[in-house]
Amino acid sequence: MPHSTETPSPQPSPQPSPQPPPLPPEFHDIAKRVRNWFRWGADDEIGTLNLVTDEVVRAAASEIRSGRRVPLALPLKEDGVQTGMIPGRINPLHTMVQINQELFGPGTVATSDDAVTMGLQTATHWDALTHVSHSGKIYNGRPADSITAHAGARFSGIDKARHIVSRGVLLDVARAKGLDRLPGDHAVTPEDLDEAAEFGRVTVRAGDIVLVRTGQMQVYLAGDKHAYGYPSPGLSVRTPEWFHARDVAAVANDTLTFEIFPPEIENLWLPVHALHLVEMGMIQGQNWNLEELSTACAEVSRYTFLLSAMPEPFIGGTGTPVAPVALL
Amino acid sequence: MPHSTETPSPQPSPQPSPQPPPLPPEFHDIAKRVRNWFRWGADDEIGTLNLVTDEVVRAAASEIRSGRRVPLALPLKEDGVQTGMIPGRINPLHTMVQINQELFGPGTVATSDDAVTMGLQTATHWDALTHVSHSGKIYNGRPADSITAHAGARFSGIDKARHIVSRGVLLDVARAKGLDRLPGDHAVTPEDLDEAAEFGRVTVRAGDIVLVRTGQMQVYLAGDKHAYGYPSPGLSVRTPEWFHARDVAAVANDTLTFEIFPPEIENLWLPVHALHLVEMGMIQGQNWNLEELSTACAEVSRYTFLLSAMPEPFIGGTGTPVAPVALL
Amino acid sequence: MPHSTETPSPQPSPQPSPQPPPLPPEFHDIAKRVRNWFRWGADDEIGTLNLVTDEVVRAAASEIRSGRRVPLALPLKEDGVQTGMIPGRINPLHTMVQINQELFGPGTVATSDDAVTMGLQTATHWDALTHVSHSGKIYNGRPADSITAHAGARFSGIDKARHIVSRGVLLDVARAKGLDRLPGDHAVTPEDLDEAAEFGRVTVRAGDIVLVRTGQMQVYLAGDKHAYGYPSPGLSVRTPEWFHARDVAAVANDTLTFEIFPPEIENLWLPVHALHLVEMGMIQGQNWNLEELSTACAEVSRYTFLLSAMPEPFIGGTGTPVAPVALL
Amino acid sequence: MPHSTETPSPQPSPQPSPQPPPLPPEFHDIAKRVRNWFRWGADDEIGTLNLVTDEVVRAAASEIRSGRRVPLALPLKEDGVQTGMIPGRINPLHTMVQINQELFGPGTVATSDDAVTMGLQTATHWDALTHVSHSGKIYNGRPADSITAHAGARFSGIDKARHIVSRGVLLDVARAKGLDRLPGDHAVTPEDLDEAAEFGRVTVRAGDIVLVRTGQMQVYLAGDKHAYGYPSPGLSVRTPEWFHARDVAAVANDTLTFEIFPPEIENLWLPVHALHLVEMGMIQGQNWNLEELSTACAEVSRYTFLLSAMPEPFIGGTGTPVAPVALL
Repeated sequence: MPHSTETPSPQPSPQPSPQPPPLPPEFHDIAKRVRNWFRWGADDEIGTLNLVTDEVVRAAASEIRSGRRVPLALPLKEDGVQTGMIPGRINPLHTMVQINQELFGPGTVATSDDAVTMGLQTATHWDALTHVSHSGKIYNGRPADSITAHAGARFSGIDKARHIVSRGVLLDVARAKGLDRLPGDHAVTPEDLDEAAEFGRVTVRAGDIVLVRTGQMQVYLAGDKHAYGYPSPGLSVRTPEWFHARDVAAVANDTLTFEIFPPEIENLWLPVHALHLVEMGMIQGQNWNLEELSTACAEVSRYTFLLSAMPEPFIGGTGTPVAPVALL
Repeated sequence: MPHSTETPSPQPSPQPSPQPPPLPPEFHDIAKRVRNWFRWGADDEIGTLNLVTDEVVRAAASEIRSGRRVPLALPLKEDGVQTGMIPGRINPLHTMVQINQELFGPGTVATSDDAVTMGLQTATHWDALTHVSHSGKIYNGRPADSITAHAGARFSGIDKARHIVSRGVLLDVARAKGLDRLPGDHAVTPEDLDEAAEFGRVTVRAGDIVLVRTGQMQVYLAGDKHAYGYPSPGLSVRTPEWFHARDVAAVANDTLTFEIFPPEIENLWLPVHALHLVEMGMIQGQNWNLEELSTACAEVSRYTFLLSAMPEPFIGGTGTPVAPVALL
Repeated sequence: MPHSTETPSPQPSPQPSPQPPPLPPEFHDIAKRVRNWFRWGADDEIGTLNLVTDEVVRAAASEIRSGRRVPLALPLKEDGVQTGMIPGRINPLHTMVQINQELFGPGTVATSDDAVTMGLQTATHWDALTHVSHSGKIYNGRPADSITAHAGARFSGIDKARHIVSRGVLLDVARAKGLDRLPGDHAVTPEDLDEAAEFGRVTVRAGDIVLVRTGQMQVYLAGDKHAYGYPSPGLSVRTPEWFHARDVAAVANDTLTFEIFPPEIENLWLPVHALHLVEMGMIQGQNWNLEELSTACAEVSRYTFLLSAMPEPFIGGTGTPVAPVALL
Repeated sequence: MPHSTETPSPQPSPQPSPQPPPLPPEFHDIAKRVRNWFRWGADDEIGTLNLVTDEVVRAAASEIRSGRRVPLALPLKEDGVQTGMIPGRINPLHTMVQINQELFGPGTVATSDDAVTMGLQTATHWDALTHVSHSGKIYNGRPADSITAHAGARFSGIDKARHIVSRGVLLDVARAKGLDRLPGDHAVTPEDLDEAAEFGRVTVRAGDIVLVRTGQMQVYLAGDKHAYGYPSPGLSVRTPEWFHARDVAAVANDTLTFEIFPPEIENLWLPVHALHLVEMGMIQGQNWNLEELSTACAEVSRYTFLLSAMPEPFIGGTGTPVAPVALL
């Protein structure tokens, strides 16, 4: 769909343009080092979620100390984070189909029903492994054209993830640096992650779900959705190796674009998406509101918790809204 | 909207009909006994969810023994449980807005995005307290006309529930009776709940979320969505008092209609909905798939677990899809 | 729904505000003079469309001289005229559900199917008579609460209009004044309509559909949808009497708001809507692209034509997209 | 999407099936004879609509004799013609986003707004030329993969058709045979079309839009949408040559499937679609309600009229709802 030009847009003009350079060698070098294809067999569709074993969950249960629950989802509403910059990714349109309708006759119990139309990647969400492809491939080397309008993602759809519950670790990069939030041009590096882990006195383990806080969500909460989306701090192309080395199960953060945007390397768009989703088979989350969690963790000086972040099981979905909760 | 007559329909004909009797005295008698209005103040919007304290959650954490996670949501798909019997409550329509789209130019990382249109009460869901009203009132005595097309539910919308995590208890009524599933005309009684609690060697406590298994979900899973919906076993009008006496926080089961359908008392439609949602302020869930959980609990002879069943925070929503998970 | 504050908004703040003055006496004075209630019987649901008789259409056929067809609808697309200023009125979201799908097996004829979600008043549209109410009433004195989420408009829904074909008359107010377009604060007056009729050498007759051109559409076509919507030239509160005196069947123009916006009389919002739809029972159209038609009429110095502007028959709809065509 | 098995379904099982035979020689033989590729240039996107010249429309105007208008669209409603047999093609879901909302403060003029989600091919509609492809091609030899989820149909989208107004001719095949409706296994042949033309004393001319009445719509109007869809009378694979020989601009009829269904030749599904849309570049319409028109034409013994059947201009759409009107 043609889309608005009212916002800074990363999209190419519809006019024919010179062929861009292919994905550069540095991308492919990292890809080789982090690739998990066939690690869990040729039939695997869930990638690093395999790392969340019963044992990991059992251990995570011990992270619940106070019983405090911190929800991490943004409200779902028509005036959500989307600005129209990403074609087709609409904020939730909430409509009513029944209001106090006495379906069984006058004076009977009345019901109200609603319906919604929304992009699956619109607000607080998980990207399914199939949300991006590169070089014609999705995770585990399957062909990208296995995604169709008819069936959605035939492989590695969000319905395959089934349950996402594990130990959660907050790497509060902004707080570790003594900042409210990172500036818009800050790429979160492996060194930043180390610093935040040390700040939180936490060692990231296999099967953990890592939440990286930049503080960027404050921009949206203050009412400026355009500035929230762009430019945005986010993960550096160097971080996938850090997650890979620690066998992290999933990563989420508090930005629209997840990775630094515009990108660190000119014309290399969405490399972290491609490395996480296609190469590592590691699910990732965006637009998570980590503000209350940041305060809650700081109050008790503990940055680990049980995290439940169940995907809605859309058959063939390449993403899903999610309402995560941290149990501290 | 006019709707299909192809399925057995509980709805009145559009022709003028004689005024039905108002809600009968026995309804109002029970209502008086279970009413929680003002119990948590005149401003309260969440009712029995107030019973889920940090202490309750902390204790619930100890229910996680093996680390096994059992998801309870049905897949979200166009061929879901809805048959058209309930006007406007459509199964999810999953559509694609991007498929492997190289938004940044040829050869770049490609993205796939999807959108969905669905009823909020369509599949595995929570009813918000505002899903039903009677006598012009919703929970806590507020006027039913505070629900509008513009804003949805101004009070007690599903967004207000924020987080629903507590100890879960499976009352496996069918298994306790040695049945695969209850017959379609079986109203689950307080005695049935006692029997199932005894079978599971569990004492229901304040703040628990109770899952009542009828086995009816097997009908849907076997492919007959019409027979799944109607007639259906479900809760008797006598059970709200049982839940009320135990200060249960929420109840869910494995049927479309939640309560016995058609109802036990002629022309008294949806009394359990009205008692739970309006009078008690107790949220309730429908179309939960409890089959795997039943087996899992039976295997370890334990019927308690930590339950995470986070609502998607639709502002003003009178319901929400939910992807619950039991951690055993 | 809460909505964006990024655009100039006519909506009240959510804070309690002092009760505004009721609709002022001058409104009620005009209302009395133009009211058509019961003119076509107490059961009537179509108002001035009754004025389009077979004879009117037969005469209109003679307006087709060259056979030239001029379409008047804006393209339906995600980047349409809506800015988010009007809650819930979303631009069309076009999605694919099948793309070259060989439903009958490999190598067979393949089909592509699409779906859309859109506001019925979003682009080039007709307002149904039920699109506005005032003082609790809709056209013909029926109660406004006959519009429900369940059934939409029980009376005077857009489906009742069935066919809208008549003689069309372009009153090119901008061109008559020698202007490209009227300034944003120009209220089109009866005198302006007279001037444009004289310019076009046309006498408006009973049953005519009048198209009033302000030229404001140029602002949208030039890419500024915000400036297109607000401030906007449009009909003066004095024009309904002009249309009433001539027994016009319907009126459409080339603006988002139809009437001058912000309004001529402080705190009297949408008076023309209320007079046309509620009092006169006269359907009205907005966002009609009259640019090509203006040129076509000027070329042949004729401002009459056969106009076909069929509503899509949404049962209970309070509006409808329309793709009008002028046959010159 | 997986879809219901509750209705007789033409779709293949999801299990791997033996490769079907390719499109048979008789298909390709006809294709060669009717192909219009490049006839209107390599850039053409509208095919036989080129045949509707100003002169054709001018002449069509003279067909308006009485001024009677006969609308041909089915009502748009949730209980429409679709049964779930065709995945993703949902009936209109009409919802409310505002009901008598006093957006400008208490006591002001109140507005009602609605939204809809629907398949573009769901009710009375036009297929765009891109609705089907075969052998990887769409009309004018363009690649089928020019249809994407991002942009819809890049070429020959329904927006390109702009205006569809011409002389309409009703070929009332059922009435010509003295039948209420054709039986479900009746393939309408060229001989049937000749018979109906003779019955109506009409000669089909270049640029005409031909409406073929089978009477099958009566089955839907009587309430049986399943029997309406399948089995269904419809056009024979031999009719495209008949339309081609007469340079017809477009064809519509009163069935769900347009062509005889199941097909005349085993495993040759949708051949008429492929011949009309891909080879001839001739737009076609389905689910047109021709019952009132049949009566109206019979009353005056005239089967020609001016037909206005404007597509809603969905950018990139592969179809569109349409509200056609015949002016007699």
